[in-house]
Amino acid sequence: FSLVQTYSILECFPDDIRLGPSKFTLKRYLYQNNREHVFHGRRINVFQGEKLVTYNTQTVFQKYISFSLKVSKEAKAMQHFGDSPFAMSAFPNETDPIGINTGMFIPTLEQQGTEEQKAKWLSLAYQEKIIGTYAQTELGHGTFLRGLETTATYDPKTKEFILNTPSLSATKFWPGGLGRTANHCVVVAQLYTQGKCHGIHIFMLQLRSLEDHSLLPGIENGVIGNKFGFGTNDNGYLKLNSVRIPRENMMMRYSKVLEDGTYIKPENTKVTYGVMVLVRSFIVRGAALHLAEACTIAIRYSAVRRQSELTPGGIEPQILDYQTQQYRLFPLLSTAYAFHFASTNMTETYERISKQIEAGRLDQLPQLHALAAGLKAFTTYAGSAGIEVCRICCGGHGYSHASGLPKIYVCEVPGCTYEGENTVMMLQVARYLMKCHRSKQQGKTLPGFVSYIGEPMEKNSRMDDKVSFTCIVKAYKHRAARLIEEAAKQMQSFIQSGSPAHEAWNKSSVQLFLAANAHCHLFCVQNFIDSIRNCKVDSNTSKVLNEVCQLYGVHGILENLGEFMQDNFLTGQHAEYLQKKMLTLFDVMRPNAVALVDAFDFPDHILQSCLGRYDGQVYQALYDYAKMAPMNQTEVHSTYYTHLKPLMSADSKL
Amino acid sequence: FSLVQTYSILECFPDDIRLGPSKFTLKRYLYQNNREHVFHGRRINVFQGEKLVTYNTQTVFQKYISFSLKVSKEAKAMQHFGDSPFAMSAFPNETDPIGINTGMFIPTLEQQGTEEQKAKWLSLAYQEKIIGTYAQTELGHGTFLRGLETTATYDPKTKEFILNTPSLSATKFWPGGLGRTANHCVVVAQLYTQGKCHGIHIFMLQLRSLEDHSLLPGIENGVIGNKFGFGTNDNGYLKLNSVRIPRENMMMRYSKVLEDGTYIKPENTKVTYGVMVLVRSFIVRGAALHLAEACTIAIRYSAVRRQSELTPGGIEPQILDYQTQQYRLFPLLSTAYAFHFASTNMTETYERISKQIEAGRLDQLPQLHALAAGLKAFTTYAGSAGIEVCRICCGGHGYSHASGLPKIYVCEVPGCTYEGENTVMMLQVARYLMKCHRSKQQGKTLPGFVSYIGEPMEKNSRMDDKVSFTCIVKAYKHRAARLIEEAAKQMQSFIQSGSPAHEAWNKSSVQLFLAANAHCHLFCVQNFIDSIRNCKVDSNTSKVLNEVCQLYGVHGILENLGEFMQDNFLTGQHAEYLQKKMLTLFDVMRPNAVALVDAFDFPDHILQSCLGRYDGQVYQALYDYAKMAPMNQTEVHSTYYTHLKPLMSADSKL
Repeated sequence: FSLVQTYSILECFPDDIRLGPSKFTLKRYLYQNNREHVFHGRRINVFQGEKLVTYNTQTVFQKYISFSLKVSKEAKAMQHFGDSPFAMSAFPNETDPIGINTGMFIPTLEQQGTEEQKAKWLSLAYQEKIIGTYAQTELGHGTFLRGLETTATYDPKTKEFILNTPSLSATKFWPGGLGRTANHCVVVAQLYTQGKCHGIHIFMLQLRSLEDHSLLPGIENGVIGNKFGFGTNDNGYLKLNSVRIPRENMMMRYSKVLEDGTYIKPENTKVTYGVMVLVRSFIVRGAALHLAEACTIAIRYSAVRRQSELTPGGIEPQILDYQTQQYRLFPLLSTAYAFHFASTNMTETYERISKQIEAGRLDQLPQLHALAAGLKAFTTYAGSAGIEVCRICCGGHGYSHASGLPKIYVCEVPGCTYEGENTVMMLQVARYLMKCHRSKQQGKTLPGFVSYIGEPMEKNSRMDDKVSFTCIVKAYKHRAARLIEEAAKQMQSFIQSGSPAHEAWNKSSVQLFLAANAHCHLFCVQNFIDSIRNCKVDSNTSKVLNEVCQLYGVHGILENLGEFMQDNFLTGQHAEYLQKKMLTLFDVMRPNAVALVDAFDFPDHILQSCLGRYDGQVYQALYDYAKMAPMNQTEVHSTYYTHLKPLMSADSKL
Repeated sequence: FSLVQTYSILECFPDDIRLGPSKFTLKRYLYQNNREHVFHGRRINVFQGEKLVTYNTQTVFQKYISFSLKVSKEAKAMQHFGDSPFAMSAFPNETDPIGINTGMFIPTLEQQGTEEQKAKWLSLAYQEKIIGTYAQTELGHGTFLRGLETTATYDPKTKEFILNTPSLSATKFWPGGLGRTANHCVVVAQLYTQGKCHGIHIFMLQLRSLEDHSLLPGIENGVIGNKFGFGTNDNGYLKLNSVRIPRENMMMRYSKVLEDGTYIKPENTKVTYGVMVLVRSFIVRGAALHLAEACTIAIRYSAVRRQSELTPGGIEPQILDYQTQQYRLFPLLSTAYAFHFASTNMTETYERISKQIEAGRLDQLPQLHALAAGLKAFTTYAGSAGIEVCRICCGGHGYSHASGLPKIYVCEVPGCTYEGENTVMMLQVARYLMKCHRSKQQGKTLPGFVSYIGEPMEKNSRMDDKVSFTCIVKAYKHRAARLIEEAAKQMQSFIQSGSPAHEAWNKSSVQLFLAANAHCHLFCVQNFIDSIRNCKVDSNTSKVLNEVCQLYGVHGILENLGEFMQDNFLTGQHAEYLQKKMLTLFDVMRPNAVALVDAFDFPDHILQSCLGRYDGQVYQALYDYAKMAPMNQTEVHSTYYTHLKPLMSADSKL
């Protein structure tokens, strides 16, 4: 999924497709890691119908556990976590049951542990001698961390913390792998020492015996039951009844509790934001990938599927030739590209600012934090909604698991609520924007991307029928700046009329949400344009990318037209230009559409889709998929004898 | 779900809740029909975690088959089909494996069969001596019926039709119950006689032996494999290899094939639209019900869930007090009410016009057909998207099957593609609107609801900060009329510049789609207002319904603001009035929100939701749900011994 390789896929041998920036080829990976195992693992989930929904049962679960461990070792060796090519090839659109071990448990140790703590646990964790998870979310609290109820009370007599679940709603709920897999976890709990609460801190807790995996005393745990997706993960719950752990189990790189119970504050509380921002950058990348997968399936299928008539009695057109199909799919294709570039930008920004933070410079942290929160919310909302549009664009067949699309959706959509609920995320962005707005009013210069806030602006757009990038960006800037201004004014007016600040905030929060949303949208548009300007591709590729980018900008305005017109910055005349431009772009993009999705480089066994196959043999694939369903292995199902026959032969009472 | 009973639920004994217009109480039904059976059947699917996903396996399937047969008999006795209280109480948000038997197979016989045919098959069908399905959709064709490929060729020598599947893409695919349940079906096939094709006709086909359920010669059939939802239905495929059926098996009420092969055309081809329109009216009702269910769950949960702080250190508010939560949920609540009234109107219109059609008057058929197509598309789009918003509004817990929401979604969303793909439906509405527009231009008077098209209109809205119903309706009329006008002009301009009609149509289809959408939206707004004006409720209830209705109108304008502003009918000033009005309505509706969903009268065992419980004990319910998961029945899962332990104790190669 690397831009420099756009179109290069067409020259590749299909089995040897490059995945991601790693340049690591899948073929080599499969070859090295027992290809049969990989393919067999996948076939179980896709081509043997009924077994697909037997998630969490022994057969499938065993295969996942076993392979997951292998994969995570490989991934670590190559410094890949999260959505790496490894995980993707092993479990496309499934969750790794020990993903939280590699993605959160180990990074927490690395970042929050002292040298002694790292020496004690990290090598065990690296070798999977211990398998951990991250126990934060509770039944009653998710995004609002300060509300977590689990307690860790220090007992200076024994130099131990006593962990407790003081109420039903304090039960840890959802952590991945917690149900039956993990034997350790880091627990987020309210720290009490010397009679005082010091807020949430992180503690290492052994859950199960390393001898026989039995639960340790005081620990109650299990899986939380079935979910929309995430069937391959034993998300769990955890109740703690006076569980004692040594003082040394508190993560003490920053905060400390001394032997006598004295609490030592961290120098800066914000240094712990790192993992959170990193995880959110993975989520943005995931949204881009998932939407790209869905577009690949829907656009390839729309080039195979023929339906209805344009000319009476004529050949049925490919459904991709219908303007309404283009209207639904091409803007999503452009969004997938936009999110790819947004994700790349975010990763680069994270790496750059991380180094500054390591060096003690925290001034750019608020900006990074806002970017991560905003893009996380913006891309997961649009990504999940877009995947469903792609699925519906495949008609009835999109509803079959044979399409691969339902799984992509259920894998993407929880991104709207986990790792920070999206509305809360957007309001965090809004809080940052309001700060920027105040700074600007106080005459300060705003840094980098937010510098447009409070700047003098043209009152009316100069857009003509060419709809230039300059005019597009100005329109998005104007809209965001106006909405930020209005939200600030609205807050101010509530405060002036006597509302307390929190009430003014809540009463303005729809407006604040819209402002934050417009800001994120502007970022994606601006960044898309900058990225294609800076990337080194041949002039043909560049032309195509410019068209895709222009559609992203144009369609986004039309979808939110009212916000651009409300103060007459855009007029009805402009709307007409934009509508015409959009339709023209559809025509221009039509011949490139399939190549544009091929360029994402997803091999068939990652798409797992009868509809999105590279070879276009969709009907044969659907038929084969059906034939393999277990219920088809006998001509007469057993329920005929037990239920149908007796009822059919019974006398009717009607 | 009856308006006259709004609020009455609060006075009801919770177990004796009225469902639907039948006034048939669920309690009585359960009492009469072995209550334990019903409840037990449901518990399996919801409270025993893992078994939820063992759809189509023997245990669950048997229960469904058995109970389904009982229910369908009862339902028939009470003249209830489709989403009846019976089906709902037996299978909330599941599909009945023989639902197509009662909902489509029998009605097709009733409407398309001759008296002899009805005498032969109907009583058998009524008694479930035969169980049928409706085999229309093929691998390669869905909504475009003329494209169906299955053939029925008349052989005058033997006086038989020979049924064939001439290609892979002609394989029948998707019919409900076809996989392993049905022993008969009606097949839609291209009729060939005397060397000529006469288009699609309907044929009765026996699939399986009535003795032993084995497949008859020339028939290949099975289930199509796993789907996003519809797990309780054995949707199937069917291939026919020169299967001979008697001439009398063609449904001959209208078209006929004589013994010598002479084809007799029906007097009017449109009389067969009846079943289609009826089924679409069920779909509209389903969208209203599903969205109402989702709103009930999300709003009740939002009144229980507390999160974050408004005042620093203060009590955590109910999340329903956050303006952003109201912004997402209250417009959906108003939509659920709007769709309820739209569905009621459609059913009444269907009944009125059906009588006229029976009496040979077909003039109102195009209007009915357009209404059915448009409302089907409009309500299923908005309904499914809205259900997901409700689910996401429940945060992480919404993703658990314990919330009940994933099932509501997967049950509703296929409505966007089955029984007429939504885009095609909208374009059918557009075709009707273009006809109306032409009639008007030719000086004719347009009937009933479409009479606003082509009427002279005010250029600017007179809306003030009160945002009256009159101004709301005028705005929606103006928007729809303008978009219809523009679509017509656009088509005209393509034709004038030399495009053939079909190309002009395709090149204008985005515009046509938007016009049809605006027309349907207007219908829902106008009908909501008319309905509450005409319904007999006390003044308090009336006031509350007026607020809900006003929010539906206001929010719809704001969501599509550009379309209302493009010709300056609404201005930035109007937008400000509307935004303020919306926020005011949120405040006004907040205290009534829970009562407004209680008024839908869904009992707990129909919602099947830990989050939407009437008693609000959500955390206890989530915990109980988790505890019951089969994986929790042993402390150490078997995969520990087979996989985790060996891998954990292996030497690491890193």
